[in-house]
Amino acid sequence: MKEPPFSLRDATVAVVGLGLMGGSLAMALRARRACRKILGITRNVAARQAALSRAVVDAASPDLALVSEADVIILATPVRTILEQLPQVGTIAREDAIIMDLGSTKLEITRAMEGLPAHLEPIGAHPMCGKETFGFNAADADLYRDAVFVLTPLARTSASTVACAESLAVTIGARPIVLDAARHDKIVAAISHLPFALAATLMKTTDELAQADDLLYVLAASGFRDTSRLAAGDVTMMLDILLTNRENVAAALRTCAQNLDELAELIDRQDEAALRAVLQGAAMKRRQLF
Amino acid sequence: MKEPPFSLRDATVAVVGLGLMGGSLAMALRARRACRKILGITRNVAARQAALSRAVVDAASPDLALVSEADVIILATPVRTILEQLPQVGTIAREDAIIMDLGSTKLEITRAMEGLPAHLEPIGAHPMCGKETFGFNAADADLYRDAVFVLTPLARTSASTVACAESLAVTIGARPIVLDAARHDKIVAAISHLPFALAATLMKTTDELAQADDLLYVLAASGFRDTSRLAAGDVTMMLDILLTNRENVAAALRTCAQNLDELAELIDRQDEAALRAVLQGAAMKRRQLF
Repeated sequence: MKEPPFSLRDATVAVVGLGLMGGSLAMALRARRACRKILGITRNVAARQAALSRAVVDAASPDLALVSEADVIILATPVRTILEQLPQVGTIAREDAIIMDLGSTKLEITRAMEGLPAHLEPIGAHPMCGKETFGFNAADADLYRDAVFVLTPLARTSASTVACAESLAVTIGARPIVLDAARHDKIVAAISHLPFALAATLMKTTDELAQADDLLYVLAASGFRDTSRLAAGDVTMMLDILLTNRENVAAALRTCAQNLDELAELIDRQDEAALRAVLQGAAMKRRQLF
Repeated sequence: MKEPPFSLRDATVAVVGLGLMGGSLAMALRARRACRKILGITRNVAARQAALSRAVVDAASPDLALVSEADVIILATPVRTILEQLPQVGTIAREDAIIMDLGSTKLEITRAMEGLPAHLEPIGAHPMCGKETFGFNAADADLYRDAVFVLTPLARTSASTVACAESLAVTIGARPIVLDAARHDKIVAAISHLPFALAATLMKTTDELAQADDLLYVLAASGFRDTSRLAAGDVTMMLDILLTNRENVAAALRTCAQNLDELAELIDRQDEAALRAVLQGAAMKRRQLF
């Protein structure tokens, strides 16, 4: 059990994965002088060199063994890499170390965290922010500013670990919110994974049509650009997300496909009243939200 | 037949509809001192007053009759309103007047333009730009800058009218491109109407899911915001678009629905190789385009 009060300021934080999320986290912690020491672990040589030369991390290594020096270990790799890394981290992390991840799906990860040794303090996290660009070069100390920062503690997670995770989130400008992992996965299937799948499917659909007309993309404007934006993101990250949130995502995709077919039906039938109701409902809700 | 050389600078231009598109066009023409006189026709009292007080137009009226004073008449109302206005404009427009529209679908409009008196010079247009906000208050003199400006001349449209329309587009910073109306409608079904329909359908789908979880929208971040953006647009304008491009839009929606179902199928089967191929293809294409 971690001795309260645990102070982030005195802690050594290891960030595993220095891509967009991990790199931005390290930068945000460094910019706020939030902790004593930051360690970066990544097999990406260029990211290690850049992080060291910009003093974003104090030490960097391709070897996961470096996490043994940390009080807080943050796994910022794709979801299935996190699932692979957790057992190894469990064997080398120091006693009372907080093991947090930033994976975009939480149920499989928190289940895997249940298997960690009892002397460790696991907690799931998912900051609701991102960009379609990725890698350390896309990282940004302000990425987390004002972002909702979901925390999914396990039954075994101590209150002081939740508090420490909340304080880390607040420190980097984010807004922590504690949520059940299963509930999180269902929500993000709708508001994050579905939009991504729609963007990718839009690209697939237009590309099929572009085969027949080489002017197609010439007419594409900001509407197309924004709706398709998410399709440009990190493929491995998204693949892992879809494969670790299968039921929720597949259900959301099928509901959406059915809604699209129904819209096509209304257009065929020229059912103006019903069409207007659908568009008006969507417009009002969207205007309410943003 | 218009006497060459027709000079936009000496022309009186009437803009019918002072919303986002018409208002922005009037502002762009005024900012560049592109023509002698600008007339604004709209039933919207506030838009008339704002356009007059900001000197965007020289005269304004709720009455379409004002177009009789113009050398160039630009219909910037929703598509089905344009279809209603065309016959009336045809009876009052002065000889040799250029009748242009900015409607988002072109086949029905250019067909209706065929019915205009022979002494008029009709040409379809569709600038590929927009915003999810609308109305004169959202108008912006720079809206057309760098936008592709599609022109769909009729068989009867004279070369000098095409040249005049091109020069108008260039004057406001846009890039004119001449296109067959049917081809235009097929293209925009894919790269404009489909993205809009996806945004509206995303809102409908998430709203169904939000009924079951009041935290759903709390987690929505920039990905959701961008993918749903188009749903907030002008409902009447979009309704008219869908109803005047029915076959193309319904076909695109159904192809997209099928692609979504296929994606759900791949996720169910955990077919990693096929999933990666779909996501990678979409990502590469999107990164190539923007």
